[in-house]
Amino acid sequence: MYNIIRKKRDGFELSREEITKFVKEYTDGKICDYQASALLMAICIKGMTARETSDLTTAMANSGDTVDLSGLGSLSADKHSTGGVGDKTSLIVLPIAAALGCKVAKMSGRGLGHTGGTVDKLESIPGYETAISPEKLIEQTKKVGIALASQSGNLTPADKKIYALRDVTGTVESIPLIASSIMSKKIASGAQNIVLDVKVGSGAFMKSIDDARDLANAMVEIGKASGRNVRAILTNMDIPLGNAVGNSLEVIEAIEILKGNGDKNLLDICCVLAANMASMAVGFDEEKALSLAYESVENGSALLKFREWIEAQGGDGRIVDNYSLLGKASVEKEIKSEISGYITKMDAEKIGNICVDLGGGRKTKEDKIDHTAGIILVKKTGDKVEKGEVIARVYTNKEDVVIKAAEDFLNAIEIADKKPEMQKLIYEVVK
Amino acid sequence: MYNIIRKKRDGFELSREEITKFVKEYTDGKICDYQASALLMAICIKGMTARETSDLTTAMANSGDTVDLSGLGSLSADKHSTGGVGDKTSLIVLPIAAALGCKVAKMSGRGLGHTGGTVDKLESIPGYETAISPEKLIEQTKKVGIALASQSGNLTPADKKIYALRDVTGTVESIPLIASSIMSKKIASGAQNIVLDVKVGSGAFMKSIDDARDLANAMVEIGKASGRNVRAILTNMDIPLGNAVGNSLEVIEAIEILKGNGDKNLLDICCVLAANMASMAVGFDEEKALSLAYESVENGSALLKFREWIEAQGGDGRIVDNYSLLGKASVEKEIKSEISGYITKMDAEKIGNICVDLGGGRKTKEDKIDHTAGIILVKKTGDKVEKGEVIARVYTNKEDVVIKAAEDFLNAIEIADKKPEMQKLIYEVVK
Repeated sequence: MYNIIRKKRDGFELSREEITKFVKEYTDGKICDYQASALLMAICIKGMTARETSDLTTAMANSGDTVDLSGLGSLSADKHSTGGVGDKTSLIVLPIAAALGCKVAKMSGRGLGHTGGTVDKLESIPGYETAISPEKLIEQTKKVGIALASQSGNLTPADKKIYALRDVTGTVESIPLIASSIMSKKIASGAQNIVLDVKVGSGAFMKSIDDARDLANAMVEIGKASGRNVRAILTNMDIPLGNAVGNSLEVIEAIEILKGNGDKNLLDICCVLAANMASMAVGFDEEKALSLAYESVENGSALLKFREWIEAQGGDGRIVDNYSLLGKASVEKEIKSEISGYITKMDAEKIGNICVDLGGGRKTKEDKIDHTAGIILVKKTGDKVEKGEVIARVYTNKEDVVIKAAEDFLNAIEIADKKPEMQKLIYEVVK
Repeated sequence: MYNIIRKKRDGFELSREEITKFVKEYTDGKICDYQASALLMAICIKGMTARETSDLTTAMANSGDTVDLSGLGSLSADKHSTGGVGDKTSLIVLPIAAALGCKVAKMSGRGLGHTGGTVDKLESIPGYETAISPEKLIEQTKKVGIALASQSGNLTPADKKIYALRDVTGTVESIPLIASSIMSKKIASGAQNIVLDVKVGSGAFMKSIDDARDLANAMVEIGKASGRNVRAILTNMDIPLGNAVGNSLEVIEAIEILKGNGDKNLLDICCVLAANMASMAVGFDEEKALSLAYESVENGSALLKFREWIEAQGGDGRIVDNYSLLGKASVEKEIKSEISGYITKMDAEKIGNICVDLGGGRKTKEDKIDHTAGIILVKKTGDKVEKGEVIARVYTNKEDVVIKAAEDFLNAIEIADKKPEMQKLIYEVVK
């Protein structure tokens, strides 16, 4: 290990054997944290070649269980987002992709801190079972086209351990390390075709398009080296996606989108993500795939898939027509603007943390979630607001947190006289 | 700490407060090893400014006890060598410097691994007491001009802890880290005038003169910032210094040098080191100091100082005239060359390890030392040897290790047809 650290410190390329040895022995507890963190810092500063990054990914992907989706053939497709607040795209993209013929057997995580998790959102649906066996996951996907389960206990343990160490040693911001962390999980999860939603902007890991493009290229390269088809869509994260933040609120918003209502930008991103999955997995040309995606929403086939999926996994499908089955928070409060002007900025991380304070997220892994808590953004970046006008509504079952939540919300947004210049929603597709 | 790591990772200069906080909290066990090693790696790769290096040194020097040598006034002088095999210069330099009027109250270490320690060498003298109190150290120095004690338990604990971590995390080879490690100990040890023997060559930390000069400059700068006079002498380490490796063997060689016998190169280096100490502490001009140094050997005043010093510290001064009082190893074996030619290389580290195997050094801190064990180098780099001619003699009390030691020794040297080009002994003085 000592020589591996020195080699990377001096800027040399590590061999596959050296990388595999590090990942295996660190996962097994044979390499100390302080040696691992020295190597991670050297990687962070000196970088990794595409070959090294790919070898690191493979070693992490093979560090624990892997999901065998060969039974789904070339139709298996997966999506991953680099994380965001109020990101309910999976709930919309999966039904559209399945309506277009993709087979999506997906493992997803729970939320921690300011970011939410798809598994939590789905658990706000009465009866939905997230802890299903790999056999059931594949069986249901074959039949319905979608299954979404919580991550198995031993998927990529190397990534879990390395990520936890990076988090406290200033080694998070490294493209090879971010790329290998994401891709190791995707590769272990088994899908042949993978679409990555790489968020760009002040609220995202990747602050600039150049960095995001580098990350996207790294992940596409890793995919190629592992025999997977990978596309990465660079999307704008300066504006929160859609209007709902909070578990059942986001489920309702997803259903509204599938009904053809709601935020146009959110629908656009979901159609692009789903179309790229279908283009790779089913073989449509890209334009055709995109028009079929919109069509599946218009003709209701995507909504039907959503209901089929929820019911196949034990959930109450009637929620599609009756949102009251999802429950409702006891306290609802309107937040009004104290001044007039244009919203020029919404701090997604702060908004995510307010949702946690309302009960809709976890501060520690052990916290319980209130699925009905959350925020509806009535106005968003670029919108004009008048003094006294409602800009958001908060929902909670904890009366004592409402006043602070309202204050925090007003601190999380900026209002100015001049309408801000609006950025593109989708920057580019890397493949 | 997290932000300090990230700041250095991104190449920014750390403030004095940040550096002091790291040193203090790491020494106190409030910062984890894995965070410290990440920072050390970032320092190793990104470097430190002179100001940062000086602040790091000060923080480490102040992390534990410090020795107050103000009672010795401006005459206090110290020397330090960056380490070597068979390096007995302290035993020779201190008496010469004291004969010239310097007051040398020195703390020294024990040997570990292939490098020896001055304290071990002195303990081969019957009666010599290395564990003396700070009061006795200063009292004796005032009276005799020299005292040499083993390092106190709590001198620069920060350096001890940081060095131990660097040793296993590939962060040893960093000029700011090496410079601050050496200088923190020297500053905590209290001397006003400090001469550093910076070894250059294949057997040394510093492989090139450029690196050695950078290290020397860094240490001289630290000295200035701390109000100490510092000079660094860059000396050649391609050839072992003198002929003896092993504790009592080196004491005998030191006495022989002080008697005007023995290796001319060793005498030259010792005179330059002592002359620089005296030039700074006493105020002689450099040429005068050097001629006085040689004179002190010729007229016996340096040898007299040596004997005075040994006796003041409880040792048997009669060893000066009777080496048999130092004891003798029970096994002595001549090593003969298997071929004819010129010695072109002697691997100092390997030779140091052979000495350890013979019983003359420690593999772990707990090992006991056989003071009589060691090696006499009969021939050295540049010398012509005939097949069957004696090139070295090994001494030990462990009969079973002799054969392997002889084999190892022949593997530690290279013999070729062509006489090697001899390098300069002393490259330059940095001040």
